[in-house]
Amino acid sequence: MLSCCDIVISFLKTSIIVNEAPLISKKFKDLQDHICKVLNEKNEEDLFITDEWNRPGGGGGRSRVIENKKHLSKGGVNFSEVFGELPQGSAIHTLSEEKSFFATGVSVVLHAVNPFVPIIHMNVRYFELGNGEFWFGGGIDLSPVYVTEEDASYFHSALKSICDKYNKDWYKEFSIWADNYFYLPHRNETRGIGGIFFDHLKTDRASKEELLQFCLDLGTAFPLIYSEIMNRRKNTSFGKEELEWQQLRRGRYVEFNLVLDKGTRFGLETNGRTESILMSLPETASWKYNHKPAENSKEAHSLSYLVKGYSWV
Amino acid sequence: MLSCCDIVISFLKTSIIVNEAPLISKKFKDLQDHICKVLNEKNEEDLFITDEWNRPGGGGGRSRVIENKKHLSKGGVNFSEVFGELPQGSAIHTLSEEKSFFATGVSVVLHAVNPFVPIIHMNVRYFELGNGEFWFGGGIDLSPVYVTEEDASYFHSALKSICDKYNKDWYKEFSIWADNYFYLPHRNETRGIGGIFFDHLKTDRASKEELLQFCLDLGTAFPLIYSEIMNRRKNTSFGKEELEWQQLRRGRYVEFNLVLDKGTRFGLETNGRTESILMSLPETASWKYNHKPAENSKEAHSLSYLVKGYSWV
Repeated sequence: MLSCCDIVISFLKTSIIVNEAPLISKKFKDLQDHICKVLNEKNEEDLFITDEWNRPGGGGGRSRVIENKKHLSKGGVNFSEVFGELPQGSAIHTLSEEKSFFATGVSVVLHAVNPFVPIIHMNVRYFELGNGEFWFGGGIDLSPVYVTEEDASYFHSALKSICDKYNKDWYKEFSIWADNYFYLPHRNETRGIGGIFFDHLKTDRASKEELLQFCLDLGTAFPLIYSEIMNRRKNTSFGKEELEWQQLRRGRYVEFNLVLDKGTRFGLETNGRTESILMSLPETASWKYNHKPAENSKEAHSLSYLVKGYSWV
Repeated sequence: MLSCCDIVISFLKTSIIVNEAPLISKKFKDLQDHICKVLNEKNEEDLFITDEWNRPGGGGGRSRVIENKKHLSKGGVNFSEVFGELPQGSAIHTLSEEKSFFATGVSVVLHAVNPFVPIIHMNVRYFELGNGEFWFGGGIDLSPVYVTEEDASYFHSALKSICDKYNKDWYKEFSIWADNYFYLPHRNETRGIGGIFFDHLKTDRASKEELLQFCLDLGTAFPLIYSEIMNRRKNTSFGKEELEWQQLRRGRYVEFNLVLDKGTRFGLETNGRTESILMSLPETASWKYNHKPAENSKEAHSLSYLVKGYSWV
């Protein structure tokens, strides 16, 4: 039975969560609206089906899903705000004895129709434990089926300029972090040409307001950056060969997300909404045994960029 | 520097491994030959490309790979014999303080062309630690794209008759184990109609010779059981709808293997040969957001069988 003291402690913990977290959730939900609005305008199409859902155990979300559109094959822009008890053995749980958590974020993955338009991922998130400990995390990374130096440089420069507004060291740190995070050790390949990744950003880095604003700036810039790259490539002609290579690269994307991605694993572990979590998977993917692109082919050239530590700016 | 005593202990550990394990490896390698021979005969086609490989860190294997054959889309029959040091944090490692290991096994996954022919998996394995502790594990399970009661009953009856030769309780125990193992919690679905699964079979169950023979019996029966089901279904006509459902079910198979399968995760963790481990993935797979088969469709009917505890014999 709960003692009076337990109830007071429990109330205090809840009030820490209730005070600030909903404001951040609200900002992230507005960010989702903004991203969808810009993507719709740039694509000149109503891209999204909206699904609102509740999470047994606490919270819920609003998924905005894309399927079979003119330029976008599959993907979505998800908002979620979930809370409750961390499961035993959860990756987050091991960091703290505290079990109750609150998490909110926006997560985007877009798979394009044209193999010359890259796969893109963006995520910003806020995590808070019942003891008041909190942090921000997130990232953007680009996974081109065919790497072009021009797009990769444009992408990294845009990210650098956002980071630089907050701290001149962040771009370097976060792009190295991305290279290490978006990496498939079993393939000895990076997932794409990187981007930025950050986690556990706390107030020793910047004020809570600045950390939030950094996340919002990234999210706000995201649809513009992606649309610029899409506009450059969406009308490039392609054939069977390019589509086959796209399927294989999508297979790698599936491998990363299901084997390695911490967000996916955390979501599945915490009884998250499967359909929203696995929205990141492509419409179709393929695997061939021991496939190696022909020497000097454009596929081999592209693959040669998928290494850690390539400097794009 | 190693002391004399360390060297003696190290020699003793090695000699335990050297004494028995190679005999088991040899039996498993012969089993691989047998399975390939029977599958070739039954398919009236030379199905396999053979790839021998060495594992950095110890051991290697012989992969026999299938791609784009008349009735089989993708798959393989792999033999491996690997040894070395268990990595930190490995699932096996947590069972014991002992770090050195030896593992040998045969692993099969077959993806058929015709959606009415099920996906099948079979694995038998022997695991030994440097301290002499050893166990057998394995299993067979059937993942039909379209479940038929006739095939599911035939499959389970065949497995029961093999188990019954060794212990009348094993079929029941191991089929429950399979239902629990081949289960996707995030989908609330079993991978297929189950089969048998067992792990950590030690000499409290049966003698080492009997445990080995049980594994060999399963492996020997496997290509006959599968070929019977294939012969029943390989000429069933199908169209676009059945192929689409097959792609989605293959997507679930990918999810199981990459998110949940302990063999896959152990292989990738221990610097196993990626191409051999991921041979289990299908040639193509697909995902749709929140796909639900139409009510009373044959797809919905099939899905209704993918629950734990269904009794097929």
